[in-house]
Amino acid sequence: MKFLKDDFLLKNKISKKLWRDFAKDMPIIDYHCHVSAEEIYNNKQFENITQVWLYGDHYKWRLMRSNGIDEKYITGDATDFEKFECFAKTLEKAIGNPMYHWCHLELKAYFGFDGVLSGKTAKEVWDKANSILTSGKMCVRDIIKQSNVAFIGTTDDPVDTLEWHKKLQEDKSFKTLVAPSFRPDKVVNVDKAGFSLYIAKLGEVCGSEITSIKDLKDALVKRIDFFASLQCRASDHGLDKGVWREMSEDQVNEVLKKALAGESVTTDEADGYKSHLLKFFALEYAKRGWVMQLHMKALRNPNTKMLDRLGADAGFDIINPDASIVGITEFLNALEMEDSLPKTVIYSLDPSDNEFIGTLIGAFQGSEAEGKIQHGSAWWFNDNKQGMIDQITSLANLSLLGNFIGMLTDSRSFLSYTRHEYFRRILCNVIGTWACDGEVSCDVDALGKIVKDICFYNAEKYFNLKGELL
Amino acid sequence: MKFLKDDFLLKNKISKKLWRDFAKDMPIIDYHCHVSAEEIYNNKQFENITQVWLYGDHYKWRLMRSNGIDEKYITGDATDFEKFECFAKTLEKAIGNPMYHWCHLELKAYFGFDGVLSGKTAKEVWDKANSILTSGKMCVRDIIKQSNVAFIGTTDDPVDTLEWHKKLQEDKSFKTLVAPSFRPDKVVNVDKAGFSLYIAKLGEVCGSEITSIKDLKDALVKRIDFFASLQCRASDHGLDKGVWREMSEDQVNEVLKKALAGESVTTDEADGYKSHLLKFFALEYAKRGWVMQLHMKALRNPNTKMLDRLGADAGFDIINPDASIVGITEFLNALEMEDSLPKTVIYSLDPSDNEFIGTLIGAFQGSEAEGKIQHGSAWWFNDNKQGMIDQITSLANLSLLGNFIGMLTDSRSFLSYTRHEYFRRILCNVIGTWACDGEVSCDVDALGKIVKDICFYNAEKYFNLKGELL
Amino acid sequence: MKFLKDDFLLKNKISKKLWRDFAKDMPIIDYHCHVSAEEIYNNKQFENITQVWLYGDHYKWRLMRSNGIDEKYITGDATDFEKFECFAKTLEKAIGNPMYHWCHLELKAYFGFDGVLSGKTAKEVWDKANSILTSGKMCVRDIIKQSNVAFIGTTDDPVDTLEWHKKLQEDKSFKTLVAPSFRPDKVVNVDKAGFSLYIAKLGEVCGSEITSIKDLKDALVKRIDFFASLQCRASDHGLDKGVWREMSEDQVNEVLKKALAGESVTTDEADGYKSHLLKFFALEYAKRGWVMQLHMKALRNPNTKMLDRLGADAGFDIINPDASIVGITEFLNALEMEDSLPKTVIYSLDPSDNEFIGTLIGAFQGSEAEGKIQHGSAWWFNDNKQGMIDQITSLANLSLLGNFIGMLTDSRSFLSYTRHEYFRRILCNVIGTWACDGEVSCDVDALGKIVKDICFYNAEKYFNLKGELL
Repeated sequence: MKFLKDDFLLKNKISKKLWRDFAKDMPIIDYHCHVSAEEIYNNKQFENITQVWLYGDHYKWRLMRSNGIDEKYITGDATDFEKFECFAKTLEKAIGNPMYHWCHLELKAYFGFDGVLSGKTAKEVWDKANSILTSGKMCVRDIIKQSNVAFIGTTDDPVDTLEWHKKLQEDKSFKTLVAPSFRPDKVVNVDKAGFSLYIAKLGEVCGSEITSIKDLKDALVKRIDFFASLQCRASDHGLDKGVWREMSEDQVNEVLKKALAGESVTTDEADGYKSHLLKFFALEYAKRGWVMQLHMKALRNPNTKMLDRLGADAGFDIINPDASIVGITEFLNALEMEDSLPKTVIYSLDPSDNEFIGTLIGAFQGSEAEGKIQHGSAWWFNDNKQGMIDQITSLANLSLLGNFIGMLTDSRSFLSYTRHEYFRRILCNVIGTWACDGEVSCDVDALGKIVKDICFYNAEKYFNLKGELL
Repeated sequence: MKFLKDDFLLKNKISKKLWRDFAKDMPIIDYHCHVSAEEIYNNKQFENITQVWLYGDHYKWRLMRSNGIDEKYITGDATDFEKFECFAKTLEKAIGNPMYHWCHLELKAYFGFDGVLSGKTAKEVWDKANSILTSGKMCVRDIIKQSNVAFIGTTDDPVDTLEWHKKLQEDKSFKTLVAPSFRPDKVVNVDKAGFSLYIAKLGEVCGSEITSIKDLKDALVKRIDFFASLQCRASDHGLDKGVWREMSEDQVNEVLKKALAGESVTTDEADGYKSHLLKFFALEYAKRGWVMQLHMKALRNPNTKMLDRLGADAGFDIINPDASIVGITEFLNALEMEDSLPKTVIYSLDPSDNEFIGTLIGAFQGSEAEGKIQHGSAWWFNDNKQGMIDQITSLANLSLLGNFIGMLTDSRSFLSYTRHEYFRRILCNVIGTWACDGEVSCDVDALGKIVKDICFYNAEKYFNLKGELL
Repeated sequence: MKFLKDDFLLKNKISKKLWRDFAKDMPIIDYHCHVSAEEIYNNKQFENITQVWLYGDHYKWRLMRSNGIDEKYITGDATDFEKFECFAKTLEKAIGNPMYHWCHLELKAYFGFDGVLSGKTAKEVWDKANSILTSGKMCVRDIIKQSNVAFIGTTDDPVDTLEWHKKLQEDKSFKTLVAPSFRPDKVVNVDKAGFSLYIAKLGEVCGSEITSIKDLKDALVKRIDFFASLQCRASDHGLDKGVWREMSEDQVNEVLKKALAGESVTTDEADGYKSHLLKFFALEYAKRGWVMQLHMKALRNPNTKMLDRLGADAGFDIINPDASIVGITEFLNALEMEDSLPKTVIYSLDPSDNEFIGTLIGAFQGSEAEGKIQHGSAWWFNDNKQGMIDQITSLANLSLLGNFIGMLTDSRSFLSYTRHEYFRRILCNVIGTWACDGEVSCDVDALGKIVKDICFYNAEKYFNLKGELL
């Protein structure tokens, strides 16, 4: 097969049929990503491909560093073309890397380039992409529209004003629903620098100083309600580890006061505080029918020198294979004991946890939803062909694939919607291959229904979007 | 290929030949399962398929819960047909799940149904299966006979009277040898509720009160001898973790006394007691040529609410990825130091341990048997196509596949013997594919011999069954 | 396909082309192995195949033990033919094991035998191999020459005289560069028996007693310089776990003194000492442009009885899945903080760490080299087809496959060079299959360049061998 043709990743007739007749045209529900509502509202126009590809995408930075490229050409003061050329040369060596696939899918979908990006073709691609980007026909809203995106769930801090979400929802000319997601990591991370300053800010936003756990919870309920008023239906937590520690509200109050006074808290204190807050949040989510997303086992900023130089989220995070995860079980159990376990999606950065998660979700399902507890789509470093196949296979083995809520981009770039295409092709190929090999009954309509559910309808139901999308 | 035809899971000529000429007709040695000797003796007749499929099979319950089905239709008071219909609808979404394969293999083998079970066909299957189940020709013994089962190793508590095993062995009309396996978890788990009551019962069964470690060991030797008198040749231990702690017999005696007095014991005390008991058991097994099975890294009953409602073994257990396992090494070493390491089969619920186990067994082999220490067949949650392929591949990479003792059902249902067919087809396909791809010499007779060994002869030798089977 | 033909492991046209036109004829850089420089210098001739295959290869011993073979026929006083015959019979059961492939590749490449080794053919192979081994045309240097080996990196203790390396480098008739690698495990392992004796010996070799950390470092710098004078360009460390503990030089000095006085040191003391020494070594390597290799998570000698009987490295080591690894991150960070992180290759014996390593290396790259921090080739127990595919796939997913430095034998046997062939065939098949399946642009010259880089040029650059090889 030629690279990136219509049948890309589809290895048999049934897979191709599933893709063409069922998956391809389904709208996208991108329920977890990191794009900017402001840029959508303002319909930002990019001047060149480096701006949209390389200004914020730490996946690409990481790859360039692996090629020995000097930071000048990555995040430094080299020209945009120099940076693009360095990236193009790097991509030549990236065979087998999802970036190789993503980039070429994007070049084809948005710029009509179906060749191979390399040092040799860098200038051609640069010119071609830039002429389209600056044409006025490939601004942010155009990209979203062309990509058939029905829903975008951004990732937002509790103190965020959400002003751009509000404006977007008021703008009836734009059909995609852009809703915030509630990510209160800074409230939970009592042991991280800047905690007390952050709580002060939260108090300001809510119009009253926070000096106790009660104050804090009151403020948070206000923010949760505010988020809900702007169509929020999901939260998101980054949990470096899965430890669970019961602590009385009085004790938690003491820990909070220590932290607000700028004193350092012990690991046990922090664990107790975090467990308490997580439970508080989960109960609020359950009340509102929100989805709770848990992202586990990332180890952030292990390279101090580069953290000092470039700040966080610059492409230096790693998997933490030693982090405890089983404590998450006690968290879910504590919620279940109070009949207040919300819909929950569990992601681990460590692919060795696939089977653990597959069994864990099976122990906490409920009749409020089909697939109430979900094994999240292959996340971050696992968001590649093998990682997706492994997650799909593990989920199918241990739960009901038919109830899977499917893909999200988790991206900071507006060109990443082709990752849904990538996922769907892989999904169709997995299922189509089962059918071809006689491992599942070859009823294409029944299989096609499952494909459509995973591409769209399951997420639509799970995130309470029925009737909300245009 | 059509679903579930003769060539199911067999993707090339050699695989098909291995299955048809070597694997298919070998009798089954089901050396580890959870069926009831009483039901075999009484040749139980089921009234409908829900009784045989859904009354006790927590694999199916788990799947139904993942579909958001209310507990009423799973373990509650709905009618048997309602439950069956709910399950049938669930199965539609279970593509890629081993349950999808197992169920259809069972429907075909025992009820001649070769369609697809779904909401639509539920009534048809219900009628068809029930008419056969109630015909008097598909009672428990018929199922076993039709399945060509030569040996059944049940799982039994030391206090069990084994009366049904005795009657079965006296009944010369029934050719399958049904032997107990010795599973003394309740003796080992000094830190679990009910320990002292259990020990009291054990004392009663043995006719003398147990107040010391010496009494306990005397009682256990009596029970082991009793089990041996009824053809027991294997034990089974559920080890949540692989910790090893040396403790003197005097100290162990003190821990036992504390526990018998209803006092709680510390983790260290429990670990010391458990290590001591495990070693005691292993020495007794070694003396008798028994096989010791170790099942590791299950986390049982994480959902307290459902445990309180339904009890244990109701489909809520999970993998514990954080449990220590390497301590098992010290256990084997302690036994090896006394030249008393019995034949041992090691299973972990965490598939990430495959390679650890593959290397571990290689460090403790002995000349008493070919493959004295075994990597157990893909267990429980891993008992699916990918899990089996991974276990077979890992075992082949790190040890001698030719000495593998093969499959067991681990099942509570009499219809599960098709899992042996499932395993054998997968095994034949793995080996046949190697031959087809030129990765092994294509000497079909030599490969066929290995297949027959893994299907039957290795287990026959390993469990000292030579000359014992009819 | 027939077993072991020209197309062995190559499943499509492009894979075959990549192997034949790009991989096959590249010279070998075997940058990490355990062969003897003395045997190379003396051009050792083996009397029979047992000497070259079974005298030192604990991979083969392990397999024989898994077959229940008595130690007499493995490491005991049986005749060489008896041992060979026992091994041949064992190999029959080893389908799917890399040993099955390696052995047959070796028999074909060095002895022209293209049948299957088994009990039946043992005598034929024995005669055929021995006649060639004793012909005077298959001595050690002949094997190396026939195998097209350009560089051999042996593994050597700091106290080694390296006399044979010196003689080899002076012998202009021998074209292969044989350089030592610096493996100072005995200096690092302050908590192991024999430490103080070893340090005394190191002092002797350097001509001055070692009584302080300063003395120790002075001595080590001398040895490092000596190794460098004999073309050493790589070091190697066996790290059982990845713990990092900061400790002042004064404290480390105290720990050293305790250990030299024969007192036992605590785990914390040992961790602090080891961390300090590792950092010291790394700084020295960085200064010299050496490569630092870290081999992690082996658990050595778990079988005390066999350790007492046969000593270390006798085929009883295992993977330690419970060993902490994430501490290695802090080690790299500490070096990066001082701008002194050398080129580093990280290997873990636990294949579940593949993805962790893939992300870890991406967080510490630098512009001194393309692929400065490397994910080491599938090591030891992972050095099989599936293990290699997994490492290659993981590396490709998470980094730049095009910068991979490729294969090493890690072997104690001179016949193991076919492992490079094995690796190259697998590599070509992975890449060729991507091309065939349309997952990478099918530009054979571009792909062939990547293949050649991984087979030779990347390692040539990485180990500063440009211009040094003949």
